[in-house]
Amino acid sequence: MSSDSRAEAAPRRRPGRPRKDQPDPERFAEILAGAAEVFLARGYDASTIQQVADTVGMLKGSLYHYVRTKEDLLYVILQRTYAAALSEMRRVLEERAGADALELLAAFVETHIRFTIANFAAVSIQFRELRTLSEARRAEITAEGDKYTALLRDLLQRGVEEGTIGADIDLPLASWSILGQLNAMTQWYRNPGRLSIDELVAAFVGMIVSSVVSDRRSAEAGGPASLRASFTPGR
Amino acid sequence: MSSDSRAEAAPRRRPGRPRKDQPDPERFAEILAGAAEVFLARGYDASTIQQVADTVGMLKGSLYHYVRTKEDLLYVILQRTYAAALSEMRRVLEERAGADALELLAAFVETHIRFTIANFAAVSIQFRELRTLSEARRAEITAEGDKYTALLRDLLQRGVEEGTIGADIDLPLASWSILGQLNAMTQWYRNPGRLSIDELVAAFVGMIVSSVVSDRRSAEAGGPASLRASFTPGR
Repeated sequence: MSSDSRAEAAPRRRPGRPRKDQPDPERFAEILAGAAEVFLARGYDASTIQQVADTVGMLKGSLYHYVRTKEDLLYVILQRTYAAALSEMRRVLEERAGADALELLAAFVETHIRFTIANFAAVSIQFRELRTLSEARRAEITAEGDKYTALLRDLLQRGVEEGTIGADIDLPLASWSILGQLNAMTQWYRNPGRLSIDELVAAFVGMIVSSVVSDRRSAEAGGPASLRASFTPGR
Repeated sequence: MSSDSRAEAAPRRRPGRPRKDQPDPERFAEILAGAAEVFLARGYDASTIQQVADTVGMLKGSLYHYVRTKEDLLYVILQRTYAAALSEMRRVLEERAGADALELLAAFVETHIRFTIANFAAVSIQFRELRTLSEARRAEITAEGDKYTALLRDLLQRGVEEGTIGADIDLPLASWSILGQLNAMTQWYRNPGRLSIDELVAAFVGMIVSSVVSDRRSAEAGGPASLRASFTPGR
């Protein structure tokens, strides 16, 4: 039993795994942010550990105190980004537990957009570079992404049950479609842009809410355009 | 004057440019389709001309009768895909010149989805690999993409003017958002899928149309859910 435990614990410090004995968590966070910027600007395949070290102003040798490989950097960036996004979204939805599903959907969209802007490089590379991870790591990250999508699908389902979202809506397709249009931001959004972040949030929330609303809930608001105008961001 | 003309014509046959003296247009189309599949499966950076030659069952040396470099393959794939998409979309919209903008929007969405499914590898790599093109070629392809987006933005504008699309809609954002959710299909769609292509088209058309509809046009249909149900694909 004890020898089994040791055998399981050993690989944690082996090459190819992120090292758990990190000298400085803040410095590590800076390294990950710098690596995300390098991967976004140059593409993961064309990036080197040396470029990451140069970007964060440290020696390549010192960087190896934190990770063993370039793939470790990508893996930890994606792992942390998904964990932070999930945790933030769960907090926002729990805070609004009394709201109807359309209001929860508005909060979901707003939270997703603000998180994307605040973590732009990390969120952007997730779509472009996920496939370069090893199969086991990609499966782990994909499972986290599925949990996030499930939060959205579950709130849409609740809306269908309470009658605020149309019974005609295909929930898996609506979930992917909503996330697809939000995530496409990583291809065109520049900060600062033509619209303020609040304007961007309001426009996205309006279009997404009216894309799935039920006839009854829309009529209560005065129609889809009036419904779109009723959601004010920045709460 | 005649020497200038010759100077301009000469680079057409130089290395680095697709050769215009293509031995067999059908064979070239097969090569491009094979290359798109290889680039999609392996990623452009990790792909080789040899793999493309193996996929289409020809010698690497014979493939050089058609293109000089791997980048030529990517360039011609993207160039032809955009040209075909633009031409098809213009034809569809012109055929429906008497329809209101919401019906044109439905036709745009349906045409885009069917084109994406019919040209899945080429459409998928366009988003992932565009940045690997040389700057001049990327600018040329991006300009074609802008023309396509303009077709969508112009029909939305027409809808605002005729009152079928909400005056509250931000037209550039709506255009990117609609294309974003459709293009995200390249990340999750598998053929055959859970939904038939007609069901997929109907669900997308419904959500997109109700995301931008005006109060008046929605009320005429009986509300957004009734509006969504009123569009039947496969015309």
